[in-house]
Amino acid sequence: MSLMRIAHVPAVSVDVSASVFDAVRAMVDSSVGAVAVTDNGRLKGIFSERDVIKKVIYFDLPPHDTRVAEVMTAEVESISPEIDLDEALKIMIARHFRHLPIVDEAGRVLGVLSIRNILQNRVEELEDSINSITAYYSADGAGG
Amino acid sequence: MSLMRIAHVPAVSVDVSASVFDAVRAMVDSSVGAVAVTDNGRLKGIFSERDVIKKVIYFDLPPHDTRVAEVMTAEVESISPEIDLDEALKIMIARHFRHLPIVDEAGRVLGVLSIRNILQNRVEELEDSINSITAYYSADGAGG
Repeated sequence: MSLMRIAHVPAVSVDVSASVFDAVRAMVDSSVGAVAVTDNGRLKGIFSERDVIKKVIYFDLPPHDTRVAEVMTAEVESISPEIDLDEALKIMIARHFRHLPIVDEAGRVLGVLSIRNILQNRVEELEDSINSITAYYSADGAGG
Repeated sequence: MSLMRIAHVPAVSVDVSASVFDAVRAMVDSSVGAVAVTDNGRLKGIFSERDVIKKVIYFDLPPHDTRVAEVMTAEVESISPEIDLDEALKIMIARHFRHLPIVDEAGRVLGVLSIRNILQNRVEELEDSINSITAYYSADGAGG
C-alpha cells in the first residue's frame, strides 16, 4: 500500500512500437527518469534516461529511427504491489536499479518505483524514528 | 572529509569547448551521471544525463554539433569540501539537485557529489544508528 503511495502511479509508458524519441518525449513531458515499455498494457521492458545516453547517443543511433524495443532493458525485474518498501529498496541498491516496475498478477503495469523517491521517503522515516527514540529516552534522562 | 570520501573524486570534467557528444562519452566511460564543465580547471557549469535528454535530444539538437557550454547549467551551486554531508543532502533534496560540485577557494573543481551516493550512505548510517540505539536499550530491558 505505501509502495503505491510512493511510486509513480499510473506508470508512464510507451508502446513497444514507439521510437526512442517518443520515449524521450514521454519522459520529459511527465518528468520521469524511465518509462515502462508495454504491449497491450503488459510489461515488455523498461527504458531509462541512462539507456538513452548509453545505448543510443553514445553509439550515434538516431532517436527518431531507433525503436525503443531494440534498446530497452527487456529482462526486467518487477515487483508486486504487496511487497514492502524495505524489500524494494534492498533490491534496488543491491542490483543498482534506479527504477522498478510494479506489476499485477496478470502482468499489467501499475506504476514505476524510482530510487530517488524511495530513498527520500526512507531518509524522512529514519530521521523521524531517531528523533522520536531520542526524545523518548532523553525525557527519561536515559540518553547519553 | 567524509564528503570527499563519498563524492566522485577527482571530478569527471570536460572543457567548455567540448561538444555534447564529448560530454556523453565522458559520462558513459566514467559511469557518472553528470560532468563538471571547466575552463582551466575552474568550474563553469555542470552538465547531466538529464540535460542531454531535456535540452538536446528532446529538441532534436545534434550531439556532435552542439557545444556543452550552450546547454549546461551555468548558474551552478557548489559546495566547499568542509561542508558536512547532512547539509549537502538538505541542499540537494530542497533544490532537487542530483549532483553538486565540490570546489576549493580558488574555484577549482575537486569532485562531484551525487544524490545517489549520499542517500545510500545516509540510509546505511541511519540504520546503524537505529540498530545500536535499539540494541543498547533492549539490553537494559527498556525497549517496548
